[in-house]
Amino acid sequence: MEQKKLGGQTVRFASPPVILGFGCAVGQKEGQGPLAKHFDHIGQDDTFGENSWEKAETAMQKKALAIALEKAGLETSQLDYLLAGDLLNQCMATAYSVRSQDVPFFGLYGACSTMAESLSLGAMLLDGGYGTHIAAMTSSHFCSAERQYRNPLEYGGQKPPTAQWTATGSGAVILGREGYGPRITHVTTGKVIDKGITDANNMGAAMAPAAYHTLQAHFQDTGRTPGYYDLIVTGDLGSLGKEIVTDLFRRNGIDMTKVYEDCGCLLFDPKTQDVHAGGSGCGCSAVVLTGYLLRGMTHNKWKNILFCGTGALHSPTAVMQKESIPGICHAVAITTQKGGTP
Amino acid sequence: MEQKKLGGQTVRFASPPVILGFGCAVGQKEGQGPLAKHFDHIGQDDTFGENSWEKAETAMQKKALAIALEKAGLETSQLDYLLAGDLLNQCMATAYSVRSQDVPFFGLYGACSTMAESLSLGAMLLDGGYGTHIAAMTSSHFCSAERQYRNPLEYGGQKPPTAQWTATGSGAVILGREGYGPRITHVTTGKVIDKGITDANNMGAAMAPAAYHTLQAHFQDTGRTPGYYDLIVTGDLGSLGKEIVTDLFRRNGIDMTKVYEDCGCLLFDPKTQDVHAGGSGCGCSAVVLTGYLLRGMTHNKWKNILFCGTGALHSPTAVMQKESIPGICHAVAITTQKGGTP
Repeated sequence: MEQKKLGGQTVRFASPPVILGFGCAVGQKEGQGPLAKHFDHIGQDDTFGENSWEKAETAMQKKALAIALEKAGLETSQLDYLLAGDLLNQCMATAYSVRSQDVPFFGLYGACSTMAESLSLGAMLLDGGYGTHIAAMTSSHFCSAERQYRNPLEYGGQKPPTAQWTATGSGAVILGREGYGPRITHVTTGKVIDKGITDANNMGAAMAPAAYHTLQAHFQDTGRTPGYYDLIVTGDLGSLGKEIVTDLFRRNGIDMTKVYEDCGCLLFDPKTQDVHAGGSGCGCSAVVLTGYLLRGMTHNKWKNILFCGTGALHSPTAVMQKESIPGICHAVAITTQKGGTP
Repeated sequence: MEQKKLGGQTVRFASPPVILGFGCAVGQKEGQGPLAKHFDHIGQDDTFGENSWEKAETAMQKKALAIALEKAGLETSQLDYLLAGDLLNQCMATAYSVRSQDVPFFGLYGACSTMAESLSLGAMLLDGGYGTHIAAMTSSHFCSAERQYRNPLEYGGQKPPTAQWTATGSGAVILGREGYGPRITHVTTGKVIDKGITDANNMGAAMAPAAYHTLQAHFQDTGRTPGYYDLIVTGDLGSLGKEIVTDLFRRNGIDMTKVYEDCGCLLFDPKTQDVHAGGSGCGCSAVVLTGYLLRGMTHNKWKNILFCGTGALHSPTAVMQKESIPGICHAVAITTQKGGTP
């Protein structure tokens, strides 16, 4: 059998899976940000017609998946697998959105890296020959995350400038073995990296070393340099985490400034939207990918993107027990060029 | 490419992955039960030398993984991927056990089905050609689960007879593309099934319909009957859930009584250990598999086993919001017969 593992942490696909459809649903604040025009569905309010924030998050997932399926011209019954997860305890938003889908389901927990994790595994399952269509999905909701991870909204708690704003949004991607669309050529799977950050209001710093580690592994395994990509984008490091990654590469003699962005910095306008260090949450990278990035790729804005979902694998209980915050980052190489890459 | 998907929910492996090693660590109560002599490591107390129940769970995972690797004759550095998850919020036990492993990591959330989920995905990744060695792992701890899902231990809360006892234990399996050992030939991936049970003290009833659904799919997809297997074992339905599954099959004209067991019924002695309807938790099926079942297979006690991890994808928040409890079940066919199956 052909060796698909390039060595290290990277896989190259023999039959690069195709992104046949993608969809997103976002909240009000995201719909007032700089990427507003790229989103498929912007909620009238953040309840999405439900009577709890958690159920609102489930409703967003259903919406995003329905849009992605419609764009792919597929029915739910044509999906071989659905891979999804979210930030809520027991991945509650996902369990209740998948309940109504009648599709074999693998539940994931990758914190805010879930969009990249679900794409990675989905692409491996398709390229491996285990089906023809797979959905990858995730979500986060500011209000459900705040009360679970921090304080009830009614507290009106203040946050330090390093804190980030959990995005309200869900993104879904439909992958196919065949068809027309951007293709996933490589995935680089992250290791858990923990450099000892204990401040849960500074996730960017906690996750940045994981992003640096995975990016380095990707470059080493593939022989590519940052310049190969039109855009390298991390999931939700925010302004501080992005600066740390840029700095770590600079110390290594590599200039990332020309091609590197972060979804947490793209999603909101730092001048007018008061999100401190930027956006975060599973939904952040998911809606930037399924709204802005994949749409841009299909309009030839970028040919080669490296999408790097970042996640902080901490828990409030762990932080109370004085534990530091482990980070992870999974990188997914997406291209619109035919024939993939050597 | 060869069609590996049998149709429906089942995959048949072209190169059935081999179980090269397996290990488990359990708590005191599990070490006093009927399977005691099969476990690799029984904790002196349930702290495993740590100062919190969550950290104790992490310690158990590390122990189980180390034992499994040792039996497989492998170093951590030879693992291509580690797939794992647990019941704690943000899969905390797993994040902190994997942190020290330096292995590419996919985090899973399948509630108590995680052992079967991690084996399913691990086998697919290996058969798909993405590496040579993969670890699948999970855990649960009675004390960390009680305080998260129910009440602090100090409450001494009473439970109804339908309630189950979360197992304290962790199991790890090392899968390889080549080598000697039992092989995974098929996986049947479950859909989320919810028949409207809202009582979080009756998980057996909530999960039984999912187990029935996945088993039916497995028989239909493979053309096998229950009699093909020497043992069909569900993860943690307990005595009540097991009875429901048996009854659902009986109504369908199928007698399951000769081959069907449940890990939750095997792990504890109902007469002397006061566990109400039986064992539960990710650790329940994980330690029964990695202690009793795989050891039995290597000693020719059984040739063909269908291991069906069952999970309740509810959350305490969902239950408070009057939601019912969605269930899931993933089936993994394991054989010691050479050449696999047609």
